[in-house]
Amino acid sequence: METLRVAVAQMNPTVGSFGRNVSRILSFVAKATESKAQLLVCPELSLTGYPPEDLILKPSFLNRCRDSLLALAAQIGPLPVLVGFVEQAEEMVYDSAALLQNGAVVAVYRKLQLPNYGVFDEKRYFTAGRKGLVVDAGAIRIGITICEDIWLPDGPHLKEVRQGGANLVVNLSASPYHRGKWRERLDLIRLRACDCGAAIVYANMVGGQDDLVFDGHSLVVDASGSIRAQGQGFIEQLLVVDLDLRAASTLALSTDLVEECRIELPEYPPSTRLAPLVVSPGSEEEEVYRALVLGTRDYAEKNGFTDALLGLSGGIDSALVASLAVDALGEERVHALFMPSAYTSQESWADADAIVANLGIELKTLPIDDVFANYRELLAPSFRGLEEDITEENLQARIRGNLLMAHSNKLGYLVLATGNKSEMACGYATLYGDMVGGFAVIKDVPKTMVFRLVRYRNSVANRPWLPERLLTKAPSAELRPNQKDSDSLPPYEVLDPILEAYVEEDLPLDDIVGRGFKREVVSRVIRLVDGAEYKRRQAPPGVKITPRAFGRDRRLPITNGFSEEE
Amino acid sequence: METLRVAVAQMNPTVGSFGRNVSRILSFVAKATESKAQLLVCPELSLTGYPPEDLILKPSFLNRCRDSLLALAAQIGPLPVLVGFVEQAEEMVYDSAALLQNGAVVAVYRKLQLPNYGVFDEKRYFTAGRKGLVVDAGAIRIGITICEDIWLPDGPHLKEVRQGGANLVVNLSASPYHRGKWRERLDLIRLRACDCGAAIVYANMVGGQDDLVFDGHSLVVDASGSIRAQGQGFIEQLLVVDLDLRAASTLALSTDLVEECRIELPEYPPSTRLAPLVVSPGSEEEEVYRALVLGTRDYAEKNGFTDALLGLSGGIDSALVASLAVDALGEERVHALFMPSAYTSQESWADADAIVANLGIELKTLPIDDVFANYRELLAPSFRGLEEDITEENLQARIRGNLLMAHSNKLGYLVLATGNKSEMACGYATLYGDMVGGFAVIKDVPKTMVFRLVRYRNSVANRPWLPERLLTKAPSAELRPNQKDSDSLPPYEVLDPILEAYVEEDLPLDDIVGRGFKREVVSRVIRLVDGAEYKRRQAPPGVKITPRAFGRDRRLPITNGFSEEE
Repeated sequence: METLRVAVAQMNPTVGSFGRNVSRILSFVAKATESKAQLLVCPELSLTGYPPEDLILKPSFLNRCRDSLLALAAQIGPLPVLVGFVEQAEEMVYDSAALLQNGAVVAVYRKLQLPNYGVFDEKRYFTAGRKGLVVDAGAIRIGITICEDIWLPDGPHLKEVRQGGANLVVNLSASPYHRGKWRERLDLIRLRACDCGAAIVYANMVGGQDDLVFDGHSLVVDASGSIRAQGQGFIEQLLVVDLDLRAASTLALSTDLVEECRIELPEYPPSTRLAPLVVSPGSEEEEVYRALVLGTRDYAEKNGFTDALLGLSGGIDSALVASLAVDALGEERVHALFMPSAYTSQESWADADAIVANLGIELKTLPIDDVFANYRELLAPSFRGLEEDITEENLQARIRGNLLMAHSNKLGYLVLATGNKSEMACGYATLYGDMVGGFAVIKDVPKTMVFRLVRYRNSVANRPWLPERLLTKAPSAELRPNQKDSDSLPPYEVLDPILEAYVEEDLPLDDIVGRGFKREVVSRVIRLVDGAEYKRRQAPPGVKITPRAFGRDRRLPITNGFSEEE
Repeated sequence: METLRVAVAQMNPTVGSFGRNVSRILSFVAKATESKAQLLVCPELSLTGYPPEDLILKPSFLNRCRDSLLALAAQIGPLPVLVGFVEQAEEMVYDSAALLQNGAVVAVYRKLQLPNYGVFDEKRYFTAGRKGLVVDAGAIRIGITICEDIWLPDGPHLKEVRQGGANLVVNLSASPYHRGKWRERLDLIRLRACDCGAAIVYANMVGGQDDLVFDGHSLVVDASGSIRAQGQGFIEQLLVVDLDLRAASTLALSTDLVEECRIELPEYPPSTRLAPLVVSPGSEEEEVYRALVLGTRDYAEKNGFTDALLGLSGGIDSALVASLAVDALGEERVHALFMPSAYTSQESWADADAIVANLGIELKTLPIDDVFANYRELLAPSFRGLEEDITEENLQARIRGNLLMAHSNKLGYLVLATGNKSEMACGYATLYGDMVGGFAVIKDVPKTMVFRLVRYRNSVANRPWLPERLLTKAPSAELRPNQKDSDSLPPYEVLDPILEAYVEEDLPLDDIVGRGFKREVVSRVIRLVDGAEYKRRQAPPGVKITPRAFGRDRRLPITNGFSEEE
């Protein structure tokens, strides 16, 4: 039995910011050195951020990445550091891990398995590697893997890494969040440790990047699958743990499958042994809430916005977004516009007031009736003889959108759109109206989860937070007299499970009906979802929290003659 | 020497419309039968349309595709027909070609080379096939390939198809348009014919699908690379040609590489021999213009719009879009709004009048000054003490956007956005303002090409078309007094080549400067392009006409710390 003090840099890089990312890595290296760690593992593509997308096609980006790696290596001492980078070699581009030590790049491993589904497009950019890498450090043999490599039951961890006789497998990862995914990973990694009879050090990224959030939840398990250390969710963290390793295998190495390199590790520190770090999981609501906060904060900060602005309607969606924004940026950096019309209820006035009072954010009130009347007058000749309809409703939403954008332009605030996933799915949101903004915080949050998140946030507040009435009054867009969401949509407790079955699971109509819903309701919902693709295509990005978000995760044509019903 | 009468169905399918696509294929089959063709070749994925994107992930879509193929096969007689379809087999999905004859699916070929770059995501959906297919029809041996299969110098056409001894190679294709691409294909296919010593029948799709246009330009060349028949660009067409074939090769067939199937062809018709069909190419302007017309017409018609609406400013961009819309839909289905402000020049009033008079389209005039004044009054308390800036300019553009959308909502018209590629690149367009619409017709057309297209269209008009003054007056957004585009942007003759180098060629700053531009100008343009990604992400789709369009063709992160200048 050999003991290794291993450290994981659960870090938050910014895509393309090489200078910033190198500095962050170096600060983790300094802390790990101080903790007397013998090995430091950073996430996949920690040098570039993930995903760099088509930046990878720019020669200047690839050159900068190479130069940054060499500059970083030059500053690394005896503590071996694994970092992820984009490698260009002989006209090919790889998703690679570099082992840095004593000022040099000691070895490079190229990811073998490239995911190209869901939000992933890795085959657009990368060539798959051809060989495993095992680092021989005497009694410790370390097999290197990157993210997807350990997701397949018969992946490289088994063949290449076992073949290399590793007693430790490290995995550099950039695994995006959806609700409950940390638990899937936990089960997977424990299983893989048992599969390959080796301990696993799993280093995941943390931070927001456009519509993705990386949730951290890094992990160290021993060869029997027992947890030795768990990273927190949604924050940067250096994990340091003392890990007992089985004897390395003495299988003969096949050089067709595996490269090998030799290094010396720093000595195991003789001082007291570190205790295992185990984290107790929070509720699903807490987890989703924290993902949304991190995604919002990183979008604002990484894009240079100090302040955010949103339209507060007095309803539950914008209230939740205000709460998330305050938790992400601080109350003094969040601003709200209340833009009432004749259809705005007294309850909405009162609830908007209560929200800003409780949250401590700035509110401006801009009644839209005069501008609305003015538009209607201007449009009267065009619309003579035609009934009032959705046009007048959209007009109000778009006046509000215009006022939000005017404040954004004048004051430099980031506009946060407030629509939820249920309405984005059904097209129950106004394009260029309530859909305006740089970031659509809750666009992947179903309405029933909106309620759960508000209940959760109120339950942990130590002062009055969001008004309880938001949870009891009937949702309404308040764009015509006595309007209720339920005039146009099924109740959310019916709608959301249908949407989950159709959007996230791709189930056919019959199967959804088989779950106990009325055929005409399912059929109407499907038509609404299909018909709103053009709107969603023009929506701002927002945090993915479900297994299948709209956007890069679900790529449907707008021009689409397919119907579930023949 | 054997002669074959071969037919190409250069057809325009609609993604997902199985019923419609089967009918169209059958109408081509009827015409080909009437022409006494012995073989009919349809494009890649002719049954589903291309690209079906994530529809392929729906089990109901895959089942419908299988059922439609069988229903189609049941109606096919002795004329062998090759159609493209999405094949599901043993949990795998393939981009396949089916050979149909006498009521049955005789053989299936699975595409070997899957493109996953540019606008293509085929590795997201498909598994690559493993074997070539050669159809043995006695003296004629037909090697089947699909699109990308013949683009690689050492692709399957050489190995699998030559190995199969083919004297004819057919290629089912869905190759999207960009300017001049037909010529690249022509050179490629002639070269490939020489490479493999066989005639090639190249059947390309035609029609618009969201931001792609398929341009047709199908092709039949003999084994020496001589053109025997050329399809027109941008229209559906049945090509029928008598093709002389060399003797089939007598190489021994390796069944590891190639499958074989046997069919009987209908007899070669004894009547007069058909003459080669050769098309003389038009100018680049004509080609681009026709691509834009087809893309606009198909977006409208396939999405069920009868009428289109646009904002006419009196400037050249909206004039060109009006002209394209008239050519796409007919003058009675095109409507325009002229929405002048105090900054609108007399020239713009006069030119807008001339445009609608010449084109014969409906015009409504809605002055925006009152609504604008009303907004400013409402915003005055928020903006007290702050200077006028871009905010007031954007406000005007967004009032116009709101008026366009109100008409669209009330009357069901498709709004056409009028921004060009140069301004989309630099962010010189107002989000939710002039960027509103369902389809952005010229979003991939650089401003200098806008001028060329107007000149071209005027030159072929048989009545006064667009006013000549559009070509001579200085471009202006007319959002403040005496504004000119050249106040904010370099002259378009300088800007457009810089944009082409940066956006289409991914050249680094130094290389662009090396082409003879001032460093500070190039540097400013690059910053503008990088900073406008968030706007482009919310733009409507529009026709790709350059080798690299914004959108699925160029996928950059919004949150992006990379700068060409360190």
